[in-house]
Amino acid sequence: MFKYIFRIFLLFFLFTATSFAEDSISVETRACLSCHRIVTPGIVKDWEASVHSKTTLKEALNKNSLSKKVSTNSTLAKDDIVIGCAECHTANSELHKDTFEHNGFKVHIVVSPKDCAICHSKEVEEYNKNLMAEAYGNLKDNPLYAKLIKSSLEPSPNTLSENDACLACHGTKVEVKDKVVKNTMLGEMEFPLLSGWPNNGVGRINPDGSKGACTSCHPRHSFSIEIARKPYTCSQCHKGPDVPAYKVYVVSKHGNIFYSEEKNINFKNTPLKAGEDFRVPTCATCHVSLIVDSNNNVIIERSHQMNDRLAWRIFGLIYAHPHPKDSYTAKIKNKKGLSLPTELTGEFVKEFLISKRGMKKRENKMKKICISCHSTSWTENFFSKFHNTIKTTNEQTLEATKILLKAWEKSVAEPSNPFDETIEKMWVEQWLFYANSVRFASAMGGADYGVFEKGRWYLNKNIQNMKEWLMFLLKTKEVKN
Amino acid sequence: MFKYIFRIFLLFFLFTATSFAEDSISVETRACLSCHRIVTPGIVKDWEASVHSKTTLKEALNKNSLSKKVSTNSTLAKDDIVIGCAECHTANSELHKDTFEHNGFKVHIVVSPKDCAICHSKEVEEYNKNLMAEAYGNLKDNPLYAKLIKSSLEPSPNTLSENDACLACHGTKVEVKDKVVKNTMLGEMEFPLLSGWPNNGVGRINPDGSKGACTSCHPRHSFSIEIARKPYTCSQCHKGPDVPAYKVYVVSKHGNIFYSEEKNINFKNTPLKAGEDFRVPTCATCHVSLIVDSNNNVIIERSHQMNDRLAWRIFGLIYAHPHPKDSYTAKIKNKKGLSLPTELTGEFVKEFLISKRGMKKRENKMKKICISCHSTSWTENFFSKFHNTIKTTNEQTLEATKILLKAWEKSVAEPSNPFDETIEKMWVEQWLFYANSVRFASAMGGADYGVFEKGRWYLNKNIQNMKEWLMFLLKTKEVKN
Amino acid sequence: MFKYIFRIFLLFFLFTATSFAEDSISVETRACLSCHRIVTPGIVKDWEASVHSKTTLKEALNKNSLSKKVSTNSTLAKDDIVIGCAECHTANSELHKDTFEHNGFKVHIVVSPKDCAICHSKEVEEYNKNLMAEAYGNLKDNPLYAKLIKSSLEPSPNTLSENDACLACHGTKVEVKDKVVKNTMLGEMEFPLLSGWPNNGVGRINPDGSKGACTSCHPRHSFSIEIARKPYTCSQCHKGPDVPAYKVYVVSKHGNIFYSEEKNINFKNTPLKAGEDFRVPTCATCHVSLIVDSNNNVIIERSHQMNDRLAWRIFGLIYAHPHPKDSYTAKIKNKKGLSLPTELTGEFVKEFLISKRGMKKRENKMKKICISCHSTSWTENFFSKFHNTIKTTNEQTLEATKILLKAWEKSVAEPSNPFDETIEKMWVEQWLFYANSVRFASAMGGADYGVFEKGRWYLNKNIQNMKEWLMFLLKTKEVKN
Repeated sequence: MFKYIFRIFLLFFLFTATSFAEDSISVETRACLSCHRIVTPGIVKDWEASVHSKTTLKEALNKNSLSKKVSTNSTLAKDDIVIGCAECHTANSELHKDTFEHNGFKVHIVVSPKDCAICHSKEVEEYNKNLMAEAYGNLKDNPLYAKLIKSSLEPSPNTLSENDACLACHGTKVEVKDKVVKNTMLGEMEFPLLSGWPNNGVGRINPDGSKGACTSCHPRHSFSIEIARKPYTCSQCHKGPDVPAYKVYVVSKHGNIFYSEEKNINFKNTPLKAGEDFRVPTCATCHVSLIVDSNNNVIIERSHQMNDRLAWRIFGLIYAHPHPKDSYTAKIKNKKGLSLPTELTGEFVKEFLISKRGMKKRENKMKKICISCHSTSWTENFFSKFHNTIKTTNEQTLEATKILLKAWEKSVAEPSNPFDETIEKMWVEQWLFYANSVRFASAMGGADYGVFEKGRWYLNKNIQNMKEWLMFLLKTKEVKN
Repeated sequence: MFKYIFRIFLLFFLFTATSFAEDSISVETRACLSCHRIVTPGIVKDWEASVHSKTTLKEALNKNSLSKKVSTNSTLAKDDIVIGCAECHTANSELHKDTFEHNGFKVHIVVSPKDCAICHSKEVEEYNKNLMAEAYGNLKDNPLYAKLIKSSLEPSPNTLSENDACLACHGTKVEVKDKVVKNTMLGEMEFPLLSGWPNNGVGRINPDGSKGACTSCHPRHSFSIEIARKPYTCSQCHKGPDVPAYKVYVVSKHGNIFYSEEKNINFKNTPLKAGEDFRVPTCATCHVSLIVDSNNNVIIERSHQMNDRLAWRIFGLIYAHPHPKDSYTAKIKNKKGLSLPTELTGEFVKEFLISKRGMKKRENKMKKICISCHSTSWTENFFSKFHNTIKTTNEQTLEATKILLKAWEKSVAEPSNPFDETIEKMWVEQWLFYANSVRFASAMGGADYGVFEKGRWYLNKNIQNMKEWLMFLLKTKEVKN
Repeated sequence: MFKYIFRIFLLFFLFTATSFAEDSISVETRACLSCHRIVTPGIVKDWEASVHSKTTLKEALNKNSLSKKVSTNSTLAKDDIVIGCAECHTANSELHKDTFEHNGFKVHIVVSPKDCAICHSKEVEEYNKNLMAEAYGNLKDNPLYAKLIKSSLEPSPNTLSENDACLACHGTKVEVKDKVVKNTMLGEMEFPLLSGWPNNGVGRINPDGSKGACTSCHPRHSFSIEIARKPYTCSQCHKGPDVPAYKVYVVSKHGNIFYSEEKNINFKNTPLKAGEDFRVPTCATCHVSLIVDSNNNVIIERSHQMNDRLAWRIFGLIYAHPHPKDSYTAKIKNKKGLSLPTELTGEFVKEFLISKRGMKKRENKMKKICISCHSTSWTENFFSKFHNTIKTTNEQTLEATKILLKAWEKSVAEPSNPFDETIEKMWVEQWLFYANSVRFASAMGGADYGVFEKGRWYLNKNIQNMKEWLMFLLKTKEVKN
C-alpha cells in the first residue's frame, strides 16, 4: 500500500520536474521519461538526439513531397505530439505477445516494423520485398542450412550459439518464455522473459509476428538517418569473407574519397542532391536513397527493397545468379529438390529468378546513379567488366565443384552432408569466400581486395589445393592405419 | 673553450627569446625548450598541446574530487609550475640507470611509471595489479614461451627480432649498454646507449626497475586522455587474431555508432557522464573510465587495473578461465608442472584463479555500465549467451586437444615442443585464433567476426582438418620415402 | 537542321545563365560547364571544390617558392584564367589518340601526366623516375608475370579480368578501339570507344603514350592535395597481404595518433611545418611531402619519385633487396636469365641495384624526417631493428626456397611454371605475403601485424607446412591411385 502511494508521489514529483519541450510530449511519454531518465539515461539521451523527439507528426506530414519521411496518411490520435517512448512501445499493444502491464500502461519491449509502419508504411512495405525481411526463414526453412549448422557450429544443436552466430545478423525468433519479477527503484515489478533477445537482425521474427528490425540500420533510440547512410552501419553484417562489401568499399576509389572527405558530406538532407550533398556515394546512396539533381529532378526514387537496383545476386550461394523473384527463397527447388537457385553445376533455376528483362531494368536504375558523376562510356565499360567477372567466377566455381563431384564418386568423401569434410569445406570457401569476393571487388572497384586479399589468388590456389588433397585421399585410400 | 662560451651565449639568447607562458614554466624546463624547440620541434609542439603544459600542480590539485586526475597529496618542490620536460626527465634521477649529465642537468631518457606516480600514484598502483604491468615476465619467465618463440621466430635466438615481435606490445627490457658521443648543434655530447629501446610496450622493464609505459596508451608528449579513450589506441595491440577486440568492436553495434557519431562524443570530460558525454561506449568506457549519471552519482569508479570488471580471461591461453588472482602469472603451475592456468584437458587450476564469488563481483561491475543504456533483461540475456560461448568454445578446443594427444600417442607428432609441427600449429590456432575470436565476438556483439571472419567456421573446419591431417600422418607413417 | 538551331539556342541560354566566378573561367570551359552542369553534376561540383577552379595560373605562379605547387615557367596562352575542363581536356589534343570532335572542340577523354606537366613539370619528371610510372611494363614485359597470371587468373587469358585484377592498380593500356554514337540531351553525338577504361592505375599507358594517372592519388576532379596526403588514398593499393603498408600503419603508434587526432592535422598547407601542421606523419609526410621547421628551413624537399627516401625494396619480390637503379625493372636479368633482382637463392644482382652508398644516402634522407620528433638514438635503434628484420626474413625465405628446390629435384613438383602447384603457391606466400608483412611491420612499427596477423607466426608455420606437404608428396609418389 505504501509502495503505491510512494510511486504516485514520485511520479507526480518527476512529472512536474520534467522540462523537456513538455507541451509536445504526450502525457504517456512523460510518464516513461520520469523514471527512465534516471534508470536508463543512455536511452533517454539517445532519443533526445533523435528527429522523433523534436518533430510532431503534423510537422512531419507537412513537409514537401521530396523531403517527407513519413509515408502514411493515417494519423495518430493526436498529431501535435512528438514521437516518444509511449507512442512506439504502446502501439498495437494487443498484437504483441510481449505486452505487459507496467505502471498502468500496456507496454511491449520489442518495437517492430509493424509499429513503425504506423507512420512509415511505404518503407515497411518495400522492406518486406527485401530478401532481408525473410532472412530468418530463408535460413531456417532451408534443409541445407541445417546441414551447414551441424558441421559449422557445435555438433549438438545449441540455440544460444545459433543466435550468437548466423542469427545475430539474420535475426532471431523472439518469443515470450516466462515472466520474471525484478526489484526496481519503484519496488517489485513483473516483466516478460524473452528468448532470442537482445537481437537486431534484419529478419528478426517479432512477438507480434512481423519480420525485421528497423533498428538494424537506424539504431537505437535516435533512429538516425545519418547513421543508416554511413557505411559503418552496413559493415556490421557485410564485412566478413562471405559478404565483404565494406572491405571492398574501403579500398575502392569511392571509399578512398569517402574517408578523406567524410566531414564534408551531408548525411542529413532528404532528398540527397548529387554533387552538392555528396561528391562520393556510400552504400545507401546507390542502394537505398532518393537522389535528385540540382533542379530537384528525381534521379532515382528511394527504395527500402534495396535489391531493386541489383540484377545479380553475387554472394552466399554456389553460383552468382539473377536475383530471386520473391524475397522468401526457401521455397526455391532445383532439379535435385535442393533449395538452391542453381543446379550443382551452375544452371539457373529460372522459374524462381527474375528475367533478363527484369535484370536489365534493375541495372539501368543503378546506372542512372553512376552517370551523375561518370560518363556513360565509363559506366558501360564498368558493367562489362563486372559481367565478365560473373562469368569467370562461376566457371572457376564449377571447376572446384567438379573436383568435389569426383571425390564423391570415388568414395573418398561422403555427400550426405556436403559441408563436413575437408575437401567439402574447401569447396564451400571457393564460392562462399573467394568467388564472391572477386565479384564484390569487380562490382565496386576494389581491386586490392579481389586479387591477393581474398580474391583471385585464393580462387585459383584453392582449386589446386583441392586437386592435391583429392590425390592424397585417393592415394591413401587403401592404406590401413 | 670557445665552444662553452658559445653554448652559454646561445642558451642566454634562447632563454630570453622564449615566450610561451613563461612564468609558470620552470627554469629547468625552459632550458630544455630553448634547444629542443629547434632540434626536436615535433616533441615540443606535442607537449605544448598537452594538459601538462597548461596546468600547474596546484590547479590540478584544486579540482573537485570527481574531476581530479592527480591522485597524490605529496607536492613537488614548487606547485605553481606546469609539468614540463625537466619535471619528468629529471625526476627520481638517482633511481635511473639511464641518467646522464646533459648541459648541467641530470637527465634520464626513459620516463617511467615511477616518475608518473609522483602525481598519479593511484593510477600507477592500480596499473601494477594489471596483467599488463607484468607482460614482460609473464612471457619471459614461462618456459612454454621459450618453446613458442623457438618455433615461431628464427631458429636461433635473436633479441632484436623478439623486441620487434612479442615484446613490441609486451614491453622490452630497456638497459644501458654503453655511452656514445654525438655531434650536436652545441658541439660534442655524450649520451647513454640503450638496448631494448625504443619501446612503448605495456610491461616494459625500465632502467629504474619499474614496469610499464604510460605512453602505451597516453602517447607521446601530449599524454592525451582523449587518445587513450579512443579505440585506435587499444587496437595497436588488440587487433590481431590472437586478441581481435578491436576488429570485433568495429562490427558491433557499439562500433557502428561510434564511427558514425565519433565527432559528437566528448572524449575530454572527467568524469564521463552517461548519455551526455557519450551515447556509445569505447574500450575505455567499459574497462577503465569513471562514469557518472546526470546527477553526478558514480556509476563506476575509474580503474587502471582494467581487468577488475572482467570475470573471464578469454584469450591467449588454451582454455577460457577465471582471471588469475595475481598479475604475475608465470608462477602458476598446473598438475603437469606447466605454467598454465588449466590442465591440457581444460580443468581450471583453481588455487591461482579468482573464485566464483570474485567472478560474480567483477561481472556485476560491468553490468552496472551496461544498464545505463540497456534494460536489465537485455543485459542478463547478453551475459547468458556469452557464458554459453565460453562453454562451447572450451569444448571445441578440447576436441582439438584430443586429436593432438592421439597424434602424440601414436608417435606421428613429438610433444617435447608442442608448437613446432603442423598438427601442433593447427591446434595452437584452434585456441589462439579461433576460440578466442568467437568469445570476443560473443562478449562484444560482433557476430560478423565470430562466424566466418575468424570464428565458428574455422573453429570447426580446423577440427576436421586436424583429423584428416592426422589420418595422412598415420597412413604414410610406414611408407619409406 | 532544327537540332543545330536548338543546340545553339541552348548553349546561348546556358552561357548567359552561368554565374560561377565567370570572369576567370575561360570561354571554352564555360561551354563545357553549360551542359555538364546538368548531365554530370557530380563532376562539375567536384571541380568547383578544387583549387584549380579558384586559382588562376598567374596567382599560382606568384606564390613564394616554398608554397608554390606549379613548377613550370612556361605559361598558357592566358594566365589569368582558372584551370577548368577545357584547359586539361583540350590540351595537347594532337598527341591524344582519344581526341574527338565535341560541339566544336577537340576534346580528349583521358587527361594524362603529359597534360598535367604543362603546369606541374617537375612533379611529372620526378614521378617518371618512380617505379610506379613503369608499373604496367614492369609486369607485362616480365615473362615470370605471364606465368603468375596463367596460374592465378583464368586458365585462358582474359584481358577484362587482368584489367580488373593486377592492372587495376598497376594501370591498364588505354586504347581507342572504335567510335560509338550515343543519344544525348543535345541529340546524337559520336564518342571514341576505349578499351582498358576506366582505370586510374599508377602506371596506366595513356592514349598519348604517356605513363601514369595523377588522379590515382589526386582524385578525381578536385585533384585534392589533402586526399593525396591521407593514408586512405595509399591504402587503395597498399593494403592487401602483398603490400600491407596501410594495415601496418593502422596498428602503429603513428596510426593510433593519426586516427585519434585526424581533425587537428592540417592537410592543406604547403610546405608542411613539422610539429605545427602535423604532430604525426601520414604516408605522404615521410615519402613525398616538402617539410620545413618552424623557421621555414627545409627539412626535406618534396619528391614525387617517392622511393628516393627508401634504401630497400621490401615487397613484391622473393627477397628484400636494394632499390633498382632504374624505374623500368623488366630489363633486370639474373644469372639464370630471369627478370629478378636476386638469384633464386637470394644473392643480389648488383649491377641493376643502387649501391651501398646510394642506400645510405636515401636512408639518411628518411632519418631527417624521423628526428623532427624523435631523438637520434631512437631513430638509429629503430633502423638497426629494421635491418635485422631484412636479414632474418631473407633467411627464412631462403629456407622455404630450399624446400621447393628439393621438391623440384625429387620430381614431385614441376619447375616450368614456378607458381602453379600447391607447394609452389606456399612458397610464393612465404615472400609475397609473410616475409614482406614482417618487414613492413618492422619498418613502420606495427608489431601486431608482424606477429600473428600475417607475420612471423605464418612465416614459420609455412616452412613447417611445406616440409610436411613435401613429405606427403614423396611418400605417396609411388602409390598408384
